[in-house]
Amino acid sequence: MTLADILSRIVQPDEKMMGAVQKKVDNLTKPPGSLGVLEEMVIRLAGIQRTEAPTLRKKAVVVMCGDHGVVEEGVSAFPPEVTGLMMDNFARGGAAINVFSRRMGAEVIVVDVGSKAKTSPGVRAEKVRAGTNNMAQGAAMSREEAVAAIEVGIRIAVELAREGYQAVALGDMGIGNTTPSTALTAAVTGRSVTELTGKGTGIDEEKRKVKEAIIERALHINGIEKNWRAKLEPIDVLARVGGLEIAGLVGLTLGAAANRMAVLVDGVIAGAAALIAYEICPAVLPYLFASHLSEEPAHRAALEYLELTPALYLRMRLGEGSGAVLLFPLLEASLAMLNEMATFADLGL
Amino acid sequence: MTLADILSRIVQPDEKMMGAVQKKVDNLTKPPGSLGVLEEMVIRLAGIQRTEAPTLRKKAVVVMCGDHGVVEEGVSAFPPEVTGLMMDNFARGGAAINVFSRRMGAEVIVVDVGSKAKTSPGVRAEKVRAGTNNMAQGAAMSREEAVAAIEVGIRIAVELAREGYQAVALGDMGIGNTTPSTALTAAVTGRSVTELTGKGTGIDEEKRKVKEAIIERALHINGIEKNWRAKLEPIDVLARVGGLEIAGLVGLTLGAAANRMAVLVDGVIAGAAALIAYEICPAVLPYLFASHLSEEPAHRAALEYLELTPALYLRMRLGEGSGAVLLFPLLEASLAMLNEMATFADLGL
Repeated sequence: MTLADILSRIVQPDEKMMGAVQKKVDNLTKPPGSLGVLEEMVIRLAGIQRTEAPTLRKKAVVVMCGDHGVVEEGVSAFPPEVTGLMMDNFARGGAAINVFSRRMGAEVIVVDVGSKAKTSPGVRAEKVRAGTNNMAQGAAMSREEAVAAIEVGIRIAVELAREGYQAVALGDMGIGNTTPSTALTAAVTGRSVTELTGKGTGIDEEKRKVKEAIIERALHINGIEKNWRAKLEPIDVLARVGGLEIAGLVGLTLGAAANRMAVLVDGVIAGAAALIAYEICPAVLPYLFASHLSEEPAHRAALEYLELTPALYLRMRLGEGSGAVLLFPLLEASLAMLNEMATFADLGL
Repeated sequence: MTLADILSRIVQPDEKMMGAVQKKVDNLTKPPGSLGVLEEMVIRLAGIQRTEAPTLRKKAVVVMCGDHGVVEEGVSAFPPEVTGLMMDNFARGGAAINVFSRRMGAEVIVVDVGSKAKTSPGVRAEKVRAGTNNMAQGAAMSREEAVAAIEVGIRIAVELAREGYQAVALGDMGIGNTTPSTALTAAVTGRSVTELTGKGTGIDEEKRKVKEAIIERALHINGIEKNWRAKLEPIDVLARVGGLEIAGLVGLTLGAAANRMAVLVDGVIAGAAALIAYEICPAVLPYLFASHLSEEPAHRAALEYLELTPALYLRMRLGEGSGAVLLFPLLEASLAMLNEMATFADLGL
């Protein structure tokens, strides 16, 4: 399914079902509204799934992997080889995302959409190209490559929906990827690079300043000024200062929304992907669930732009979808509330 | 076991074990510190349990129930009979706390420490007295009654520890109990009643103003001025403007800490109990885990005073321990991280 096909299929959640579930929730043995975000979650799931009885039978996290030419500028605490090593780690089940997903009952699907490493056995090979170009010297990739990576994500979303998955968490791995994510967030939100640039997985203040300057240069050299919307499309911005795994997550988001799956947004990389997906198609918004608030300042900016409020404050900054999958128990608690709580009528009131 | 006995048994978490687990966590395949609060949780559990291999084999929520004489002033959205009806609901498994606890694998222990209702079958009968006096006209209860209610909580904590429970969530039910909780929070934190008084389970602004005036009057009539520490003990404050279920939770907190169990703090009622427990014995602090941030302003004030940061932001205001038990999956994720993640050595680094 192409990008154009998928966009026409993203429709608003079913308001009638949302209203029906709101009524049910108001009859449960608790003061109206007293379960706050949990009530909103189950109502939204009802709208997304077009049913008064939403479920979460199968859930997955898709970890998109890619490498970044810009790491040659010294923007990361880790060498680029770590992307490949972590792909191995994912395949062997030893990374944080594997451990958390096992506990939460979520499938982990690892996709090599653009690493420089050999695709590890057990990892889905969908390599559009082996890493991006250095975005501080020109476009990270071509528009065609960005679209191809988006379509990888769409394809996976369509397959997951066909297999009965009802929710997907956005995961990522790519040494250096807070740099393009911050560039994308600056472009979309219009906030300053200075304000948005953080320490990623652990660089010092000196390196952070270098990173900030590199992001500024990348935006400038790629012609992404404040008013880029006058001459560029969101996909152009993604191609010029984005990444292959980010593009994969954009496609996953669009494909999931078109197939009525809930999308769990992780940290700053997933947040940047959500921003671009929203710029391409604002109708994705009601399908997005914010999970945690990352330590990266660009993540907060992305969520604020989308008017999404995170449920978890854990000071995490790992990526992989590790924060997103921690939202699953809360979504499941919201379903249990709807399905298992007594009503006031049950109590004879 | 008496209150005096238990206080002498609350010791600091084991720093050597915490250091050992910190080292283990730093060797896992992730940037150091990148799992934020989850890392802190498992390190604290190691210190509390005095082991390099902490576990959470059995966990419980204790829902302490009590009634409040002050409801005759019109401070609540619900009639006092609802305390008894909800006890029935807990016993039958239909309340939010039952539903959430089932999902989280936590036992629900309901205790009638001071309701005006007949103790429901299936609820533990530990009634110290049938509801408090109206604290706007004098002391809510005697100091002896407060101590007796504290000792109910201690007894339950000791029993739970003996049965192998390793964590306990603080739950409460008692129509009107945000009023004494707010009074206690004002007394301990020194913040103004105006700032701290919220809408409880759903009163309007007019009633909220009444509630505020009632709390002011209760503090005044009971001689609890800014400098109460000069002449009163924390237990006196608890007796004068507290509640029986709050006193029960104070005892549960002290008893759990003395028995090296983690204590999960819920919303504004549990927060007030944690404040009093801390005033009685500051050594409880490292045993406390904040769960969610309630909509009640006094809850934020209590957590700030204790320098505890909530992990969950769900705009909840139900009580029952319903927010506290939602922290269990995060504590369990932190244990899984320690026990199941690969190390850099495993990856050949």
